[in-house]
Amino acid sequence: MTMPEANDSVGTVYLVGSGPGDPELMTVKARRLLDEADVVLHDKLPGPKILGEIPEAKREDVGKRAGGEWTPQEYTNKRLVALAEEGKTVVRLKGGDPFVFGRGGEEMEHLAANEIPFEVVPGITSAIAGAGVAGIPVTHRDHVSSVSFVTGHEDPTKDESAIDWEALAATGGTLVVLMGVGKLPFYTQALLDAGMDPETPVALVERATWPNMRVASGTMETIVDVRDEHDIEPPAITVIGEVAATRKAVVDFLGNRTGELADHDSGLETTTE
Amino acid sequence: MTMPEANDSVGTVYLVGSGPGDPELMTVKARRLLDEADVVLHDKLPGPKILGEIPEAKREDVGKRAGGEWTPQEYTNKRLVALAEEGKTVVRLKGGDPFVFGRGGEEMEHLAANEIPFEVVPGITSAIAGAGVAGIPVTHRDHVSSVSFVTGHEDPTKDESAIDWEALAATGGTLVVLMGVGKLPFYTQALLDAGMDPETPVALVERATWPNMRVASGTMETIVDVRDEHDIEPPAITVIGEVAATRKAVVDFLGNRTGELADHDSGLETTTE
Repeated sequence: MTMPEANDSVGTVYLVGSGPGDPELMTVKARRLLDEADVVLHDKLPGPKILGEIPEAKREDVGKRAGGEWTPQEYTNKRLVALAEEGKTVVRLKGGDPFVFGRGGEEMEHLAANEIPFEVVPGITSAIAGAGVAGIPVTHRDHVSSVSFVTGHEDPTKDESAIDWEALAATGGTLVVLMGVGKLPFYTQALLDAGMDPETPVALVERATWPNMRVASGTMETIVDVRDEHDIEPPAITVIGEVAATRKAVVDFLGNRTGELADHDSGLETTTE
Repeated sequence: MTMPEANDSVGTVYLVGSGPGDPELMTVKARRLLDEADVVLHDKLPGPKILGEIPEAKREDVGKRAGGEWTPQEYTNKRLVALAEEGKTVVRLKGGDPFVFGRGGEEMEHLAANEIPFEVVPGITSAIAGAGVAGIPVTHRDHVSSVSFVTGHEDPTKDESAIDWEALAATGGTLVVLMGVGKLPFYTQALLDAGMDPETPVALVERATWPNMRVASGTMETIVDVRDEHDIEPPAITVIGEVAATRKAVVDFLGNRTGELADHDSGLETTTE
């Protein structure tokens, strides 16, 4: 919004993860860089609380546009370079971690190719934190030795699913699907077809760590109905595996982050803060 | 160290992830809770910088003991309950995230079974951040749609490996092995036997985000020799997949965290800050 400054020195771009959405789950470094930045490029994924704390004058939205179209990645890449060349200190703020399905890799490569100094500042991914605050450890010594993260929102230019659901089922580990509310029927079926036990526990965590976080639980067989019954909407993560059942044993003792528990006659639980 | 206080109210236990080791990569909340806690139970994994910032009087080491023995998990579980029952505000500080191979799940279940109020405070896992600060995105739209985390340090009471390396290789996604320096020859062989391309890029990130972080790169075929040549030691993560090659293109432009680059005649690179 301001005019380019006459400045010979090139600014630095910080690719910063904002974590799952609770401002207190940002890193100390992210907090400092947001204060120091001249410009913050962001979309909606950091969530309303974090975005609300950034002065309007610094913010530049490169997410969904008025017409419902997404800003092309090429625009964001070019804008980062242009701002740095104006000498600006730029924060590119990404929800979660910049490198977990965040396209931070592409931005980093573009900056390097244009010789723009940059630094990567990791953030907490909702894939881990969203489960954790809901009382679900993504790994557990008694149950699993691995955890896999996949995106339910694949590159739309790919002709078919690049995700090998059969191999993922065969790992026997926890699976966490990010941005996977819409395609839930597709991949639960793919995992069942691959031989996964229909009784495998599944949890949906909607808006993890946001003020209106909700958790809905079921099994591989019931979770699509649970989603529909409770109208679970993006952003949400899907946690699949024995660990998802841990929540039941601990939910009463979780801190205020999880809020009150509402039981439903389905025998499933939804938590709304 | 202090005597139990006469206090009817039970304290809260916070299961807190300290992140990969850089104090600035702790969350704002972890930083606050460390200030507010009466006692901090920890092992060595948070790293020297973070531990060094906690007043000695608050710290209680439940990691390796003088004789080289580990404190039994049962002791730690009981100690958490006892301290809370004394009315103390307790931080159980874990390296990385408490639920990523950190046994936080067991501690949470023990606290719930004993009706001790607790809260989970996620942290950044070195599995993601260690790769990220080394210029390696664990996912990349062009290369991979999944990333799997496994531990190279399995439950020693298990008779055989519970990890299905064949299934993990079949996912086609990035693999990150935590605590996997010692068993590197074992699982690289298992993955090659499962049909993984011997030219698949591999990076070892030692003491990620610590002041003396080092990165060594190779392929599935060469990485054991690379480890030996550079004497890579725990703690370290192993990143396996096409994304590991991204580092080469971007390393000159990374921030000061990565430090100077030393080329080796093997054509492989090691970075020491």
